[in-house]
Order: sequence, then structure tokens, then C-alpha cells
Amino acid sequence: MKISAIIGLLAAVPSALAVWPIPQTFDQGTSNTKAHWVSIHSQGKTSAIVNRAIQRYNTIVNNENFLAPADYDRGTLQTSGTFAGLAVSVDSSDESLGMSTDESYTLDVPVSGQATLKAKTPYGALRGLETFSQLVTANGPTKTIANTPIHIEDAPKYVHRGLLFDTARNFYSVESIFRTLDAMSYNKMNVLHWHVVDSQSWPIESKTYPELQEKGAYSKSMSYSYNDVQRVIAYARDRGIRVIPEFDVPGHTYIVGLAHPELMSCMNKQPNWDKYAAEPPSGQLNIAKPETIEFTNKIVDEYAKLFPDEVFHVGGDEVNRNCWTEDADVQAYLAAHPDESVETLLASWYGKVHDHLEATGKQAYTWEETLFHSEYKPNNQTILQVWMDHTSVDKATAKGYRVVSSAYDSYYLDCGHGAWLSNFDGNSWCDPFKTWMHVYNYDVTANITSPEQLDLILGTEVAAWSEQIDETVIDSRLWPRAAAMAETAWSGKTDSTGHVRTTAEVASRLHEQRFRMVGRGIGAEPMQPLWCARNPGACNLP
Amino acid sequence: MKISAIIGLLAAVPSALAVWPIPQTFDQGTSNTKAHWVSIHSQGKTSAIVNRAIQRYNTIVNNENFLAPADYDRGTLQTSGTFAGLAVSVDSSDESLGMSTDESYTLDVPVSGQATLKAKTPYGALRGLETFSQLVTANGPTKTIANTPIHIEDAPKYVHRGLLFDTARNFYSVESIFRTLDAMSYNKMNVLHWHVVDSQSWPIESKTYPELQEKGAYSKSMSYSYNDVQRVIAYARDRGIRVIPEFDVPGHTYIVGLAHPELMSCMNKQPNWDKYAAEPPSGQLNIAKPETIEFTNKIVDEYAKLFPDEVFHVGGDEVNRNCWTEDADVQAYLAAHPDESVETLLASWYGKVHDHLEATGKQAYTWEETLFHSEYKPNNQTILQVWMDHTSVDKATAKGYRVVSSAYDSYYLDCGHGAWLSNFDGNSWCDPFKTWMHVYNYDVTANITSPEQLDLILGTEVAAWSEQIDETVIDSRLWPRAAAMAETAWSGKTDSTGHVRTTAEVASRLHEQRFRMVGRGIGAEPMQPLWCARNPGACNLP
Repeated sequence: MKISAIIGLLAAVPSALAVWPIPQTFDQGTSNTKAHWVSIHSQGKTSAIVNRAIQRYNTIVNNENFLAPADYDRGTLQTSGTFAGLAVSVDSSDESLGMSTDESYTLDVPVSGQATLKAKTPYGALRGLETFSQLVTANGPTKTIANTPIHIEDAPKYVHRGLLFDTARNFYSVESIFRTLDAMSYNKMNVLHWHVVDSQSWPIESKTYPELQEKGAYSKSMSYSYNDVQRVIAYARDRGIRVIPEFDVPGHTYIVGLAHPELMSCMNKQPNWDKYAAEPPSGQLNIAKPETIEFTNKIVDEYAKLFPDEVFHVGGDEVNRNCWTEDADVQAYLAAHPDESVETLLASWYGKVHDHLEATGKQAYTWEETLFHSEYKPNNQTILQVWMDHTSVDKATAKGYRVVSSAYDSYYLDCGHGAWLSNFDGNSWCDPFKTWMHVYNYDVTANITSPEQLDLILGTEVAAWSEQIDETVIDSRLWPRAAAMAETAWSGKTDSTGHVRTTAEVASRLHEQRFRMVGRGIGAEPMQPLWCARNPGACNLP
Repeated sequence: MKISAIIGLLAAVPSALAVWPIPQTFDQGTSNTKAHWVSIHSQGKTSAIVNRAIQRYNTIVNNENFLAPADYDRGTLQTSGTFAGLAVSVDSSDESLGMSTDESYTLDVPVSGQATLKAKTPYGALRGLETFSQLVTANGPTKTIANTPIHIEDAPKYVHRGLLFDTARNFYSVESIFRTLDAMSYNKMNVLHWHVVDSQSWPIESKTYPELQEKGAYSKSMSYSYNDVQRVIAYARDRGIRVIPEFDVPGHTYIVGLAHPELMSCMNKQPNWDKYAAEPPSGQLNIAKPETIEFTNKIVDEYAKLFPDEVFHVGGDEVNRNCWTEDADVQAYLAAHPDESVETLLASWYGKVHDHLEATGKQAYTWEETLFHSEYKPNNQTILQVWMDHTSVDKATAKGYRVVSSAYDSYYLDCGHGAWLSNFDGNSWCDPFKTWMHVYNYDVTANITSPEQLDLILGTEVAAWSEQIDETVIDSRLWPRAAAMAETAWSGKTDSTGHVRTTAEVASRLHEQRFRMVGRGIGAEPMQPLWCARNPGACNLP
């Protein structure tokens, strides 16, 4: 006998729709539909992306023989109808993907007969296909869709449901990026923020400055060619995921100095790197030299072409003033220009970079320091990424900026593994570990009531900085915790009655999603003993 | 140019022997030996275990094309001699494995000609083979052994270098246990403490009480047959690893109650399980019932036969008094026996279990509570496992007990992932994460000076409790942190001059070991950005 039945805590509650993230609205019946072989096909207008997704989900659903851990002893369900395929239709074949893309869909699964998935765009169809795939479960030797008829109307709460992926501290093969994009799609996430380069390595090919990769990649095999990047972008797009590149300037740029020392300040100061940088090796573009603007603009020109997304991230975080005040070039410049300072130089530098970026037709995406810790005032088309201080969401939207939150104390998934400097056995600055419950409980709208401000919140983004991560362990660092954010970003914090969902309520569904992901080849970490997954409610703190 | 050369911190120090754990004594030369194809063979007396190990290492060494990260730019080394095979000989073919097994070996690699590995026992030969395998590195299209001639004399500091593996909270396939045993052997660890069963599941076959597994395993496929267990024991023995089983009584036994409710107290109290157990589900053997002694003794009889090791762990941790004081049976018993109490019952219960265990010829291994938190006084043949309080090492050895330390605040590798109860988003009781530096810095002999007490320290054991671990993530939870303990347990804390090794000094070698393990199929987590691994000393805190 199942413990949840004994303790009767959840047994009385009708089972929620077993979909992660939970759809905005849904109705369920009390029948079960037999689905021996699941056939998905397009109907009417379609698109190549939808057709490929149909092929993918036909494979996933028919190969999968999934049963939620809590259903381990449910036995064979009686079915009263037979599934006769899923017809997928879209209003428009337009495959453009961006911030204004409509991802809504409507899914109907009758007790018997053909199910229908309708969407305005190909990307809405992708979301509906993922939802559909999660409705199909094993049933003895065959499959079933339980609790039919089902009617779902769904659309995301936020347009930006992101993951920051850092390929500079440690390298990731294209295959591991593909696997991560697959996992994102299983959770309806739609932005890969690709933090491509940083002080430790420059893995990406540059046609403008080939020497950056030649001297800055960890090795030839630990590099991304143009073709690799295009494959990642295409793979992501096929899953409705935008790829926003980040080229972080003017800090975090030691690696540029291997090829261009003439552009740099404070290159690899040792052993006291901590006076010059947040982590070793130190090195920043020298903001007193106009050549660093020219360099940055050419980088922006090149990669703004390679990456089609309308948004482009130019970093701007963690600049260190000592790096410049102790630099002889900067000192000489300031001596010759007594009305200037490091602050005015930096503000002017940011302005030239942002102006040039916007002239390419892109919208600038930047870390919160650009606004809050410099004298530069970005224009209101700029998207700010909050990380240091979660109250910055309120402050920045109050000033009219669009905001994405990656508040480190909730969303930095790399944190909690202690410090990584070889001679120090203490914690890291961002310990402790962010549990899935902690991720889930974050509310990006906390303390914000103005509708205008709320409208400026584009969404949220978990970060996986890679000082202590590489492709060996990326799956378990991301999943299922990134999925916890994904539900709050897709479904919002509340259900249709305004009730704020609690981790106790959703734990069982997240267990299910975690096991589903493992079955699909994603090495997501276990949340609890299997006993707890099988006995919902029995592993709560009283 | 390599940064370590620029900063000159470590460049002046002759490179340590690139072996993990570091041998007790070694001499190196300045030549390099070419080793195109590595042939290992036995000479004179041998054993089946040694022969299988030779076969294994022939494969490992010849398949491996390993270069330490810090050597990434070393170019092709000039060689001045040619390797002509490794001859392995043992003084004795006796394959018995236990606490008194001699694991010492002597390894000589000349500049040119045949290398020799000599050991007293087959298990010493295994250790020497692992050391030898780590000396061979890639060199352009061929291989080399650098810094020859090499003379190594080596033996372990401690006889117990263990890993606690918990197959009850979550299940592990036999293959994942094999992989873990491989990894242990790469680090010269020699004890798998198999925490087989616990409240959440009973995966192991019982011929005495088949119903335990039938009702207590998570599923048929999540079970260990006798044959599975024998395969694990044989696989471990082939790598010089003893398997000590733990059947934890009288606490942590909810799962027994599924088959035998008549033996139990406080079965799965909900929702206030925390009054009765350290974690859900609650349930303890009822110590007022002689049937629970009989049950335990039969379990001991059965598994003392199945597991050949001379040591047998009978748990004894975290018993909860409320579980019994609120039990009607216990209350009735105590009412009828006014001179007894829960404490006298428990002491008597422990005594009967330990006496019976010792009558089977085994030595009892038990958690520290048996001595420190009960009125029972184990005899001095008992081995105490310390976990709650690291000062217990001193206290227990002062009383004449042999001790293994698994001090939770250094060695619980599961800790640091936050709490796992579904409705609580805080830390776990044993956060933060234990970094490899923290593991390495633990000194089991701290504050102990008496030679008699020091002699009673058998060694150390890291623990991987599996509430938040299963086979999806076990590799990265264990490695390279367990390797950090392994070096301190094999090599000791100090070098031959008495200098206490620091994490800054050993980091580069551990990076090397981590990458070697990844190459051998162990998903060990990265310690730092690859840039740091390549630039020893450049990622220290100033």
C-alpha cells in the first residue's frame, strides 16, 4: 500500500496535470485513452521547423515508456477510448524567432479519436508538442493518456526564460550544448545566453582577429568554428530557443591580451590578482586607448552578423578600477586630460560601445553594473541583467529599463561547491547551494506593484558559471534546478486562482520531470530518495 | 609562454613525482625513457589476481594517451633510453585479503631496459601497477616515462582507506558499483563500506527472510541477488578492495516493517516523523521484543557467510528514544520490569547482537553512538566509526578502541546540496559542501600524541549518503574529493621530512589525477577552470 494513501495528505486532492511547466489553464476528464502507437502529423499550414519537431516527438513519445515515480504501483489503467493521432496545425508558417514570438497553443485530447494541437506560430506548436509528449505514459505493454478528455490553453508568462552557459572557464563540446538545448526544450526554456569568451579562454573563431582564437582557445579541439556556432544556432532555433551571445567588455578580457597586449591593462597580476580582478587572471581592455573601442566595435560587427538574434550582450560586469588607476597609460592620459577621470572614461567608453552596437540594429543586453555602478546612462532600449542585488529589478524597472533577473542568491547554479582557489578551504562568495526549492521560491516581481514596472520584466535566467563545471558534470548542475526556474518563468508563480504554488505541491511533478529527463538522456540529479518520490507528501518538514 | 614560468612560484621546485597518492619515498633522475608499447608481465611467483591486474593495466596503459594539464605545452620530450617491459613479482601467492594484508611494493624504472615491480603480496603488486600506470605519459606519437631512473618504495600509512556507499536511499546498478571500485583502485583505496539497506529500501536478496527484498526492494530490477553481491565482492577483491557490509540496527529499519510489522516501533509516523527519526520514514526494531534479537542474529548469520570480510558493520547510529518510549509494547514491557529502562534495554540489545556477531568469527564495526550515546560498553575488539564529532577519535582511542574516522564535517561528500525536504528551502544539517581542499586538510590524528592511541587509528572513510545521489551523479559527488582523502590515508599528511603537505602544493597533481580518471571513464568533477590547471600556482588566494 502506498504511503501517500495511508497518510491521506495528498490522496484527496485530484491529481494535477502531470506536465512541467504546468499549463496556464487546463481541464481534465476521468477517462483514460489507449495509445498503442502514437502518430503525430501536421495538418494544413506547416513549417520545416514544425515538421522536424513532429519527427522528433514521434520518436520520443514512441520510444519512451515512462511512468511517474509516484505511479509505480498504479497497475494497468482501464481505458475507454483509443487515441487516433495528433494533428498539428499553425496559423502562420513564419519561422522568425524573437522577443515578440507568440508561443501560445491549444491542445485537445478527446477520450477517443484524433487529438489536435493548434498554434499561431511554429514555436507555439513546439511548446504544445512537448506538453503532449508528457501526457503519454506507459500502461502495461501499451501506453495511455490518462484523465481524458483534456483541454489545454497555454502561453508563457515571460518572454525570456533563459540559461547562461559559460564556455570560457571550461570548454563544452557542441554535443553537450545540443544536449543542454534538448533539456531546455523539455522545460519550454527559450533563451541560451551564450557567455562565449572570458579571461580564461577565447574558444570562438574570429575572422576579424583570427589570433584571438589561435592564442586564446584551450586547444584546436576546444574551439568553435563558424560552422559549429551556426549548428548550435540552428539546433536551438529548431527547439524555439534564441541564442544571445555575450562578449564581455571591458573587464574579463585577459585572454584578448595574449594576442593583443597593446590593448590591455593589468595583465595577469600575480600573486595579488585580487586587487585587479574578481578572479584570476586579471586583465581589462585599456579604456584610455581609443583602439579598444575600435577593437570592441569590430568584434560587435563580426558577431552581430554571426548571431541572428535581435539582442546582443556586451557584458560590462565587475570592472576593477585599480586595474586602470595603476596603469601607466591611463595615468598618462589622465595627466594630459585633467577634466577626465576613470569614471568619465568608462562612461564614455560604454556609450561608444552601446551606440555602435545599436547602430548595427541590435538591442543591447548588459549587466546591471553598467547602469548602477558607472556614470553611464544607457538608453531605455537597453535590457539590464540583474545579478548582484535582487532589489535592482525594482530599481531598474522604476527607471524604465527592461530587466531580466539572474539574482545570484537564487539563480547561480554553480554556487554551493565551495571556493576553488587551490590554497583556501573555505566557502565561495556565493555559497550555499541553491536548492530547487530555493530556485522555485524566487519571485522576480517581489515588492513591485506598478503595472508599468511589471511589464518591463522580460523574465528570468539561471546561470551556470563554469569555474567548477565542465561537460562532465553540466547536466547535474543544471537539472532539475533550471527546470524549477523554467516553471516559474513559463507558468508564473501563481495558478489561475491567484494561489502561489508551493514546492510541496509541485515536488511530485518535478520528480516526474526529473525522471523523464533522465530517461531522455539528461543526467539530472535526484532530488530525494526514491521512496520520497513514490510517496508524495511523506518527505515534508512538519 | 606558461604563466607558471612567468610568475616563477613553482617553476623553481623540481617537479614532484606525478603519482596520486604520492608514494612514501621515491628518487627520480633527469632522463626520459621512450615507451612505445608497454608490456607488463609476471615473473616467478604470481597469482590469478595479479595476472588479471597485469592484463587490465596492459590495456589501460596502452590505450591511455595521457598528458597532465600543466604539461599541455611541454612539446615532445627527448628520450635517452627505451623501456623494455615491466616484470612483476610477488613473494607470496597468498590471495587472502584483510586488515593485515601487506600492500607495500618497490618499483624501479631504469633509463633503459626492463622495469621491475616487487611486492610481498598480490595486493602490493596491484598498488605498484597503479603507480606504474601513472608514470606513463603521452609524448608526441609515442609514450614516455619521464625523469628516469625512478626508484619507489611505497606502503600505506593506514590499513583502512574507505568509501561508504549507500544503496538504500537510492539504488545503484552493479555496473555503477564496478565503476566506483575501478575509481577507488586508481586511488589505492581498499575498503568499500557497503551500507546495503536502510529505511527506504532493502535491495539485497535474503534467503532467510526472502520477504525483506520482495517487499523492500524498490523493484525487481533494483535488487541485488546473491550472484550480484558475489560479483561485487570478486570485482573488489581483484582490485584489492575489501567489502564490509553494513546492516544498520536497530534504527533505520522502517523497511523491515513492510514484511515484519510485528518487529517494529513507530512505523512511518506522519507528518511529525521528526519526533521519531532523523529522516522519513521513521521505524525502529522494537528492542523490548526478543524476536528482534533473533531476527538480527539470523540476518547477521546469513550475511556474515555471504560477505567474507573479517569485519561486519552493525550500524547502531541515530536511534531515537521517543520511538520506543511512546510504543505501547515497550511501555508494557517496562511496566512489567520496573528495574529496566529504554537505556538498559538498548545496552542489553546491543550486547546480544555484538556477542552473536563475534561468535560468528567477525569483528564488529559500529557507529560511535554505540559507545558514546548508550550505556553499552563494547569490548575492545570493536571498531568504532566516528562521524558526529571528530574529537571522538581521541576519546575512543584513549579508551583502547580501534577507530575509523568519517567525521561528517570533513568527509560527508553528500553534504552541501542543501536540504531535501520538499517544503523547505534552507540548508541541510551538514552544509556546506566539503571541497577537496577541506577533505585534504582533515587530520585524523589532530591533538593525539600518544603512540598507543595513534596505533589504534585504522584509517579514514569518506561517506556518500544517497538521499541526493544516485548512479546518475555518483561519479562527480565522489571524485576527485574521495581521492583527496585517499592520498592522506595512503601517504599520510606529511612528506618524509615531516612537512605537512598543503593543498597548494598538491593541487596540480590532483588536477592530473582528475583528468586521468575522466580519461578512464570516471565522471569526476572539474576543480577549477582549465586555465588554472594549466598554470599551477596562478589560482591561489594571495
